[in-house]
Amino acid sequence: MNDPTEARLVIAASETDADMYYATRFLAPDPFIFLQIGAEKYLLMSDLERDRARAQARVDHVLALSAYEEKAKERDTETPSSIDILHEFMSEKNIKRLNVPRAFPIAIADDLRERGYRVAFPEGAFWPERAIKTDAEIAHIRTVQQHAETAMAAAVNLIRTSDIRGDILYRNGEPLTSELVKRHIQFTLMERDCTASHTIVACGDQACDPHDEGSGPLRAHRAIIIDIFPRSNRTGYFADITRTVVKGEPSAELQNIYSAVLEGQNFVLESIRADADGQAIHRALTELFDSRNYETSTTDDHMQGFFHGTGHGLGLEIHEPPRIGKVSETLCAGNVVTVEPGLYYPGRGATRIEDLVVVTQNGCENLTTYPKFLTV
Amino acid sequence: MNDPTEARLVIAASETDADMYYATRFLAPDPFIFLQIGAEKYLLMSDLERDRARAQARVDHVLALSAYEEKAKERDTETPSSIDILHEFMSEKNIKRLNVPRAFPIAIADDLRERGYRVAFPEGAFWPERAIKTDAEIAHIRTVQQHAETAMAAAVNLIRTSDIRGDILYRNGEPLTSELVKRHIQFTLMERDCTASHTIVACGDQACDPHDEGSGPLRAHRAIIIDIFPRSNRTGYFADITRTVVKGEPSAELQNIYSAVLEGQNFVLESIRADADGQAIHRALTELFDSRNYETSTTDDHMQGFFHGTGHGLGLEIHEPPRIGKVSETLCAGNVVTVEPGLYYPGRGATRIEDLVVVTQNGCENLTTYPKFLTV
Repeated sequence: MNDPTEARLVIAASETDADMYYATRFLAPDPFIFLQIGAEKYLLMSDLERDRARAQARVDHVLALSAYEEKAKERDTETPSSIDILHEFMSEKNIKRLNVPRAFPIAIADDLRERGYRVAFPEGAFWPERAIKTDAEIAHIRTVQQHAETAMAAAVNLIRTSDIRGDILYRNGEPLTSELVKRHIQFTLMERDCTASHTIVACGDQACDPHDEGSGPLRAHRAIIIDIFPRSNRTGYFADITRTVVKGEPSAELQNIYSAVLEGQNFVLESIRADADGQAIHRALTELFDSRNYETSTTDDHMQGFFHGTGHGLGLEIHEPPRIGKVSETLCAGNVVTVEPGLYYPGRGATRIEDLVVVTQNGCENLTTYPKFLTV
Repeated sequence: MNDPTEARLVIAASETDADMYYATRFLAPDPFIFLQIGAEKYLLMSDLERDRARAQARVDHVLALSAYEEKAKERDTETPSSIDILHEFMSEKNIKRLNVPRAFPIAIADDLRERGYRVAFPEGAFWPERAIKTDAEIAHIRTVQQHAETAMAAAVNLIRTSDIRGDILYRNGEPLTSELVKRHIQFTLMERDCTASHTIVACGDQACDPHDEGSGPLRAHRAIIIDIFPRSNRTGYFADITRTVVKGEPSAELQNIYSAVLEGQNFVLESIRADADGQAIHRALTELFDSRNYETSTTDDHMQGFFHGTGHGLGLEIHEPPRIGKVSETLCAGNVVTVEPGLYYPGRGATRIEDLVVVTQNGCENLTTYPKFLTV
């Protein structure tokens, strides 16, 4: 970016747009304007958010939209839009070319193009450096993972201390439900200033659909998949952990499925290192499952076997680059990725085991300390 | 939309994109593809979400991306993107013109334009009918408002039953903090399957900044503004309520501010009806405050007086059309809007009182039943 007429531009709410939060370290629920000209970072804020942005945002200049409103009025309408005002500011700075994220709104992009700007976006990530976590970012993620493990322990404890009546789990005389365990997980995380959405506590055939969050009474002798991925309200970073447990006696078939997934996870944990290819790891894991006769196939009714990715990057978003999956992507030291093999066979059993690791030069460091066991 | 080559297209995650949820009534955390051709609604889903979408989405056809993958492979690359597959589907349907939301991603829009599609977006809302709530939507919002009122009652009760030591509120021997009251609100709402973000419990001068969520010990004899706007996890609809309370003895000045805001709110509640202009109501309210010598002004340090909108529409988003504010917008029967005048004077006091109403032909129906009182 040596062209002085070029700027980076993001218009988004940092609470839902990770690129905006990464650029500013300022959390706001409503959209605002970020510009980077050379190395200088600017925010254009509403009067309501200006003071908080000045106190919190890691940028060089926080300007009030209202400060440019009068100029925009001279040129434009009675009530200039924030884009009219942005145009005023960019004209003053002699900006002509804009780099925006791929998700930049078409209506604003077309408006800017009509005003004569050249609007371009990158082939991939807007801030590719987001994939390489700093020590501070890893510390944030580790903290959230510890909270996720505390919530996992609370959930497993509820299941462990339940009673079996028939094939249903009971607690205090009531059926122990997925909903109750999920609420317990949510409370535990809320007390640690984290928010957990879409927590999964899914039993039996529900656990065979990785997107089924689970509902109703939990059953004895069946796999219960617990997948928790909270976000810190303070730092914005995510974590992610999955365990599979059984209260009662798992079938021999389920025990074998569990062992195969655990073997697969260990294989991946040993394969991960800087410069390894995610696609190669994913293929090798798929072949390992095939060689153990755990076939992956799709019928019109359902999929079975191992039919999701091996892992995904994680940070300010729950899913971010790099993926360990069907597409070739080279891992780098500082990537934080999940390792989450799973096998799913309706009527027979399901297991997913997920850890969170930092890729290092010669291997990986596991941020997850919660133990792995099937029966509780 | 009588042109058979035209389609509406949305690509977004329905959990964060209200237009997508409105179109499909299917909540998913990851982006998917919605197309409407004439009256027929189509979803193009990943294999992982296909079955859940077939069970839950209110559309005519749920197709798996993978069903078109082979065709796309014949034409394109080895690993076709979802846009390659979408292109395959749209070619089959002879679609040439696309209407997309204003927030549609520029990268996808440009890609589609390069493939020969004409991509346009509306001047305003993608589904203007979202502003006119159906009876079922009003019932959803009313339910959430009742939960918000329950949380308000819990918060007020914590403050009412606190002890005053010096000028600080205490509970069980500890200072009663904004954080503790907010946590209590969150727990109350979570138990009702609602999520509350950015809840405000702000005291004294903190309450003079409407975006300050509040922190630290609450003080006696000062205004405490409590603003709660939860979302139902089940239905996706929001609600919104604000009350201002004092534990102890409010100053005469604060009592007068409170009375003026209450008078202003009653004035607005009596002004709202179908065909009324939001801008006219907002101006009249501003004049009412001016006539009571409650001046609105901006200094370099802060703003004071009444410097935010009078109200905003609410539904699947916390802020949606119509606004009751600086811009002219005609209210319609079926709009659900907040009525939230406020006055803020650092060092002197602050008050905001907010109800939620449905606009009717001859007035409005208040969805809020929680009483209004200053001292507790």
